[in-house]
Amino acid sequence: MTNSYLEHMANDIQVARQQATFPIEELTKVLYGGELILHVVTKLRAIMDKEPLLDRAQMNYMSREQMLHHSLLVHKRLVQLVDEEDLSDLEFQGLVLLSELLSPLGLHYSAFIPVLQSQGTDEQVAKWVEPAKKLAIMGCYAQTELGHGSNVQGLRTTATLDTNTDEFIIHSPDLTAAKWWIGGLGLASTHCVLQAQLMIDGKNYGPHIFVVPVRSPVDLKPLKGVTVGDIGPKAYGGFATVDNGFALFDHVRIPRDNMLMRFAQVTRDGQYIRPVHDKLSYGSMVKLRVGMVADAGIKLGKAATIAIRYGTVRRQFHDTSAKGGSDKKKDALEQQVISYSSVKHRLFPLVAVAYALLFAGQSVSQDFEKMTKQLLKQDASMLPEMHITTCSLKVWCTRRSTDGQEECRKAMGGHGYSIFSGVGQLFATAVPSNTYEGDNYVLCQQVGRALLKQLDGIAHGVKVESSNSSYLNLLLADTPHTPYTFVNANHDILDPKVQANVFGLRAARLVADLAQQLKSGRPWSDVNIECWNICFAHAEYNLVRQFNERVAIVSAQNPALVKPMTQLANLVSIDHAFAFTDRELTSALGSYDGRAYERLWEAVQKNPLNNPAGRKEIDAVLFELLHNGDNLTISSKL
Amino acid sequence: MTNSYLEHMANDIQVARQQATFPIEELTKVLYGGELILHVVTKLRAIMDKEPLLDRAQMNYMSREQMLHHSLLVHKRLVQLVDEEDLSDLEFQGLVLLSELLSPLGLHYSAFIPVLQSQGTDEQVAKWVEPAKKLAIMGCYAQTELGHGSNVQGLRTTATLDTNTDEFIIHSPDLTAAKWWIGGLGLASTHCVLQAQLMIDGKNYGPHIFVVPVRSPVDLKPLKGVTVGDIGPKAYGGFATVDNGFALFDHVRIPRDNMLMRFAQVTRDGQYIRPVHDKLSYGSMVKLRVGMVADAGIKLGKAATIAIRYGTVRRQFHDTSAKGGSDKKKDALEQQVISYSSVKHRLFPLVAVAYALLFAGQSVSQDFEKMTKQLLKQDASMLPEMHITTCSLKVWCTRRSTDGQEECRKAMGGHGYSIFSGVGQLFATAVPSNTYEGDNYVLCQQVGRALLKQLDGIAHGVKVESSNSSYLNLLLADTPHTPYTFVNANHDILDPKVQANVFGLRAARLVADLAQQLKSGRPWSDVNIECWNICFAHAEYNLVRQFNERVAIVSAQNPALVKPMTQLANLVSIDHAFAFTDRELTSALGSYDGRAYERLWEAVQKNPLNNPAGRKEIDAVLFELLHNGDNLTISSKL
Repeated sequence: MTNSYLEHMANDIQVARQQATFPIEELTKVLYGGELILHVVTKLRAIMDKEPLLDRAQMNYMSREQMLHHSLLVHKRLVQLVDEEDLSDLEFQGLVLLSELLSPLGLHYSAFIPVLQSQGTDEQVAKWVEPAKKLAIMGCYAQTELGHGSNVQGLRTTATLDTNTDEFIIHSPDLTAAKWWIGGLGLASTHCVLQAQLMIDGKNYGPHIFVVPVRSPVDLKPLKGVTVGDIGPKAYGGFATVDNGFALFDHVRIPRDNMLMRFAQVTRDGQYIRPVHDKLSYGSMVKLRVGMVADAGIKLGKAATIAIRYGTVRRQFHDTSAKGGSDKKKDALEQQVISYSSVKHRLFPLVAVAYALLFAGQSVSQDFEKMTKQLLKQDASMLPEMHITTCSLKVWCTRRSTDGQEECRKAMGGHGYSIFSGVGQLFATAVPSNTYEGDNYVLCQQVGRALLKQLDGIAHGVKVESSNSSYLNLLLADTPHTPYTFVNANHDILDPKVQANVFGLRAARLVADLAQQLKSGRPWSDVNIECWNICFAHAEYNLVRQFNERVAIVSAQNPALVKPMTQLANLVSIDHAFAFTDRELTSALGSYDGRAYERLWEAVQKNPLNNPAGRKEIDAVLFELLHNGDNLTISSKL
Repeated sequence: MTNSYLEHMANDIQVARQQATFPIEELTKVLYGGELILHVVTKLRAIMDKEPLLDRAQMNYMSREQMLHHSLLVHKRLVQLVDEEDLSDLEFQGLVLLSELLSPLGLHYSAFIPVLQSQGTDEQVAKWVEPAKKLAIMGCYAQTELGHGSNVQGLRTTATLDTNTDEFIIHSPDLTAAKWWIGGLGLASTHCVLQAQLMIDGKNYGPHIFVVPVRSPVDLKPLKGVTVGDIGPKAYGGFATVDNGFALFDHVRIPRDNMLMRFAQVTRDGQYIRPVHDKLSYGSMVKLRVGMVADAGIKLGKAATIAIRYGTVRRQFHDTSAKGGSDKKKDALEQQVISYSSVKHRLFPLVAVAYALLFAGQSVSQDFEKMTKQLLKQDASMLPEMHITTCSLKVWCTRRSTDGQEECRKAMGGHGYSIFSGVGQLFATAVPSNTYEGDNYVLCQQVGRALLKQLDGIAHGVKVESSNSSYLNLLLADTPHTPYTFVNANHDILDPKVQANVFGLRAARLVADLAQQLKSGRPWSDVNIECWNICFAHAEYNLVRQFNERVAIVSAQNPALVKPMTQLANLVSIDHAFAFTDRELTSALGSYDGRAYERLWEAVQKNPLNNPAGRKEIDAVLFELLHNGDNLTISSKL
């Protein structure tokens, strides 16, 4: 049951791709950060495409219980693939990432093991990490509490040293101290690395990290003194496959050796030994935010790919400017939705944002690697700068990416609201990134504070060295405040130097204004929104700068990419450079072949509700109503 | 297991309420549009609060199948309550509205019956409506197709007259003609009122409405030639209790009398009789949009109530400006989150928006009643103006309300992402309103076009009569373009007259600019975004005007409300005036008593996953992994 419209859909998307005026594969390499990485990704994609378990579309009709179960089966399969395909640790990580496997074991790998590795002594690493890799134990990272998220210093769980038994006593003094939101804790974890206030002889040394067993690896029953469980469903059905959990501790005893002691130590006789540098343990927080930048770019890229593909094959309304009588119009195809100015206006800039986030993610990852090497030598000089940069990028990228994903969904019209658009699930799972790893509004205040400190240096004639905040130097007396007289604004604004100056001057002025306001007596608690604006301005300065730097490098290497990258035109092809597979997009409407309506029809046929056996209870109530009184006599005539 | 923080939560919310400087109940009356309506609402709330079935919190742990079943049980109970409590038709409607009952039968009442009533002849109404009210038949309104939503003229389902048998043949020529998204069609409907192209003797007379049986009322099996089912889950888990469905028709025959013939008719011998007025049937589309304005206000009001309550009881970080040493600070309570400038900045304006939407909803409802009376006398003079006003308000209110709901959720921090915040479900079900009943970007173009027409009149010296667009008269030569020289901008801007002029002039200028651009050759397809801006400016002009009018009326009647309404200060009390019950909010975090964390704890204890019987399959996979190889030997030492 086809018609010319349906046939045209598959054709339209081919035609759009053929219009590319540049080598798409070259652009894909740039987006993935080089040929080597793309090669690995391509290999892993080929492996995964053979695995029917990895088709996320089958989860669309599952209950939360079924989804959790399914995600564990997928995890088991990925572990098997490591042996079958002889994959490295790094390739296994790639597999987890590309499969978008959020399972009760996700944070075991991304938080439990890394915290053990970075915060444990060599002996502690040897003791815990290998068993964890074998899944002899399963773990999570327990920081947030019911009553304390942003304010880590305010955590209420205590770890009190008992020198008599050489143990710590882990205790939750009240309900607000319950660990909450901890991924992996709800169902799977046998152990956690736990943030608790270190108490020795009645003195509080602040939050430290302890390895605490919570469930028996034999039968997963909670250990004595531990109340533990799953905190229930999340908004929008997001993170359904993660068992975010809670835990309360009632005087639970652990050996003193279970405190992770790479930086701070507690001796057998109860002496506290401070870390060499206060902030050496902050590296792992920075790492989490580094990863969020590129991830936001990938998710937005997926949403934009789906929306642009669907807009290319979807047609609605006849072009009113078309020639010919009304009869001719009725026969002709309607207008491609992607050609509407409102659709272009909304979707095309989002592709540019996705590119900018991927490039910024690559830059910030390189900086992070450099910092990590320095930190191992106890050199923390890069930390303050990296902290501002990652905070401001985290805020900007999570907000713009999630707003953008929802805009993509809306731009798909009515069908965007179907689960089969695939965009809803992206947003549902991405949107809490605005709040986790530091609430965006809280992080903005940290960025504001740090930039004010740098501005203070400038007031004393000290230039800012770091390239990320060097725009503040524009405020120095010897730098002209208005760097350009625009000769041709439309043209000049495309010049990378002008862009850097415009964005830099804006950010600098906002910081200077804030300093002025505080000086004239406005309290800090009153200027949250000013900090928000500064944070965005700081991030945008760096995003624009890094984007332009990347364009310059790529252009030198591959002249054919100059035009598409600077113009971000030829959108379907630009979009196609993301090279997402159908499995990765899990979208009927954004399928590679453009057959959006046929794919949607196929997806709907799998609905268990369309089988009478799947709706017996529902039908029973309907029958009661329809057969009530003499209803059947009445309806038999209609 | 309590502490001073927990005790303070219940206290904080009481203290905030006691600070109200005005009679809250009086404001509630204004919000509900008068004492009479509030009285009915209060009566219905009392009835519903006794019904455990109506507690929507129990749906948080249900699968979609269970939720559909539950919604039907609720519907059955509401029908019983009509008898038990001797309720009128209007009170039953109130019950459905206040219970937020979205069930497979919702559109039976809100679309199927109203369309029969407004489009059917007196005989047709007599034949179909009574059986429908008794639920001897269940119905839906089938307009949208897989390939056509916005473009109703482009629908592909046909109704071809066969004069030999005096029947219409209903047919779907291809997959894109499948009816899609039809609420109630997925599982429940025995009949639909169907939009199809009327074909007589090979000539297409455009879309008309037909009553088409689709399932047997005896066993709900699809009738011959009808392929029908549920289209699957929606994004964000929204509308889970509605069976949005699809249908394909293969030469299905219905009697000629099943065409609804109040306006257009087809005679026994195949003559087509045109309606007296082309647009007489548009009234019901306007009606749907009228209802959306107040509904958007209620949903935003609920989200803001929840977020403000939670922000009032939630505390995070110590006030750095507070006096006293660090030890004193540790004992003292942390700062109320509602006191943060970023939280106030985000939440307080949203309360004002919710009020504005409720007032605009009341105004536009009154106008609609007036128009309905005129339409019954075949006078359609109000229709064009009502069309622009309701379109622009629909666009503005759905966008601002749903953006605002998600902002409320974010402003609640991490816990806002729990299903028990209650805000997620509001957004999940409200957000498609941006797309349904006319996609917002499509409606904007209609508003733009209509205002250009009025501007054209002005160019010929014809003043605009309607108050909604009268701002266009500001463009007339005898009206000064800059109506005010601001003496004191901060003060003047609060003057309602200044506000009306400022907002009016902005809207007028945008319309005039658009006209100029089109005149200089920009094609219509290029100016979607300009239409979007005009639509927003038009809506804001009218919202501000109506808000100020309402304030003036209320102030005259009740001087105590002048200050709170003009300032929208005392937010918790202002918010409290919405008078939502705990059942209506279904939010652990926004519960009336302020005990947010205790309510959250209670909700989590009901999680079936926390019972081993509810997770057998999940545990089995975890055991496989934990017991693999010599894992148990390893873990027994950790």
